[in-house]
Amino acid sequence: MLAEFDLIRRYMMSPQEAQATDGVALGCGDDATLLIPQLGQQLVVSVDTSVVNIHFPHDAPAHAVGHRALAVALSDLAAMGATSRWCLMALTLDQRVFKEETAAEQWLAGYARGFHALCQQHATTLAGGDVTSGALSISVTVMGEVPAELAMTRSGAQPGDVVAVTGALGGGAGGLALWQQGERDLTHPLLQRYLMPQPRLAAGIALRGLATAAMDISDGLLADLTHLREASQVGVVLEPEALPLVEGLVDALGREAALSAALSGGDDYELLVTLSPDNVAQARAQLAECGLSLSVIGHCSEALGVTGVPAQAATGWQHFCGGAQ
Amino acid sequence: MLAEFDLIRRYMMSPQEAQATDGVALGCGDDATLLIPQLGQQLVVSVDTSVVNIHFPHDAPAHAVGHRALAVALSDLAAMGATSRWCLMALTLDQRVFKEETAAEQWLAGYARGFHALCQQHATTLAGGDVTSGALSISVTVMGEVPAELAMTRSGAQPGDVVAVTGALGGGAGGLALWQQGERDLTHPLLQRYLMPQPRLAAGIALRGLATAAMDISDGLLADLTHLREASQVGVVLEPEALPLVEGLVDALGREAALSAALSGGDDYELLVTLSPDNVAQARAQLAECGLSLSVIGHCSEALGVTGVPAQAATGWQHFCGGAQ
Repeated sequence: MLAEFDLIRRYMMSPQEAQATDGVALGCGDDATLLIPQLGQQLVVSVDTSVVNIHFPHDAPAHAVGHRALAVALSDLAAMGATSRWCLMALTLDQRVFKEETAAEQWLAGYARGFHALCQQHATTLAGGDVTSGALSISVTVMGEVPAELAMTRSGAQPGDVVAVTGALGGGAGGLALWQQGERDLTHPLLQRYLMPQPRLAAGIALRGLATAAMDISDGLLADLTHLREASQVGVVLEPEALPLVEGLVDALGREAALSAALSGGDDYELLVTLSPDNVAQARAQLAECGLSLSVIGHCSEALGVTGVPAQAATGWQHFCGGAQ
Repeated sequence: MLAEFDLIRRYMMSPQEAQATDGVALGCGDDATLLIPQLGQQLVVSVDTSVVNIHFPHDAPAHAVGHRALAVALSDLAAMGATSRWCLMALTLDQRVFKEETAAEQWLAGYARGFHALCQQHATTLAGGDVTSGALSISVTVMGEVPAELAMTRSGAQPGDVVAVTGALGGGAGGLALWQQGERDLTHPLLQRYLMPQPRLAAGIALRGLATAAMDISDGLLADLTHLREASQVGVVLEPEALPLVEGLVDALGREAALSAALSGGDDYELLVTLSPDNVAQARAQLAECGLSLSVIGHCSEALGVTGVPAQAATGWQHFCGGAQ
């Protein structure tokens, strides 16, 4: 059995020593971490827990588990238009599932590789953590910054705004379906979307000042649209035929299931935004610089509620209900 | 079954709406929370996970589970001399353990009561969270502030400094022993110490500028002393007869087990500090204002290692080993 302090030292600390240039005055290894917020910025914080067999399969590759646990948390910073700066990782791990200590170490090394690589990609410093014993789960706290008053929220949508999404939808649910059918080729685009989602941080920053409201799509487009509608007190007229479906989704699931995955599957981690029609062209140009498309999928109305939803569409994914309702 | 969003709304949000006066620009309910750091302060952050049957018994009262999960995290801020400001709560809950929905709601209401009461006691705003399904565990992220350069760390102890602890030791392990023997009277002082530990935030602030090094006692005095010794590159000469034992501990466990609980039991959440001998009187006076004693239990030496440890003392508590070694 690996002892707790060993685990922390070997796998949780950043590969490079944290530096003052990263806004870290004192890194891992003390009771707490000391961070240096930037002047004139608000601190943007969020926490997300990923639990085995709820948020990822027990046999998911270790590096995907590490990547995904951080990605879903960073996605919340992206939705606010924040620059990611630091994260904390609370890892609960049941070493008894490993037959040999080397297997536990291999899993941890892979997990840490996936986590640290995404940290590096988004200039996010792992600034602390906790390791404990129990059923596998990871709580990741992310901390970012945004200039005061520039954060995007869910509550600014106006009647007449268009509703748009970045990238393509349905990959989360489509990838899960493929995984459950036994597909294990991680280079498959749908598995990539499901197991290795990319938080849209650059897109969030690009949309700052353009989007009137924003959030990430984690619970499924329709469920998240409900949150946005309620926060903004607007209605939405949806154009389902305009939904951008992930490449290969229709081939994999068929047209109807593909649409349902995009509407209700969840775990897509694209951004859902509203914009004045006048700003769509500029938003598209700026997202193109991030290599990302922006698809208009409807518009906001004064009449509350949502119209245009295909009859067969489910209403959302709720973890506590164990699946789509 | 309660739906996730319902759970969050009803039990996770602060009883009072978060306010700009609490440094919250945007509270729970969006993708992330917006916080307003104070000028000239460093941000002090830490995360602690509490897992059922590892950190607390499965039949612990719900309000104690809520209190304790936050208390152990706040204790890390106390050790740094920080003022606590905000926290995030990631709750993983297995509703299937409850036979009826009302039982789940009762548990959650009690849990939230314990958590919120401690928030209020330490002017800490619950600024966000996550609720998911799985084996009961709680990851609490705490965020505090400390004037730049004034944080206490583990690494400043000097040969010649005295080693001291706040309050009394052995209550964590003593309370656990009583609980395992069937004691359920929560007003029993040892159960109070075990289930409702009090983070020493006021003491931490009082010791700022006086202590040369500080940490909290969570893994057991000897184990934590090792961390402090190693971080400061000093040795320690311990005077075990000077250890302040919690009232009733010797009666409950006998002299030898009481000493062992104080040395190695852990979960005491007192502060372990080093000070110049010249500062002991002032530190005592300031702690007295917090209603807390300060006991000198040894001194730092140039010769590394620790001397004076009774032969029967265990070497520490490691969660992954399932108990004291």
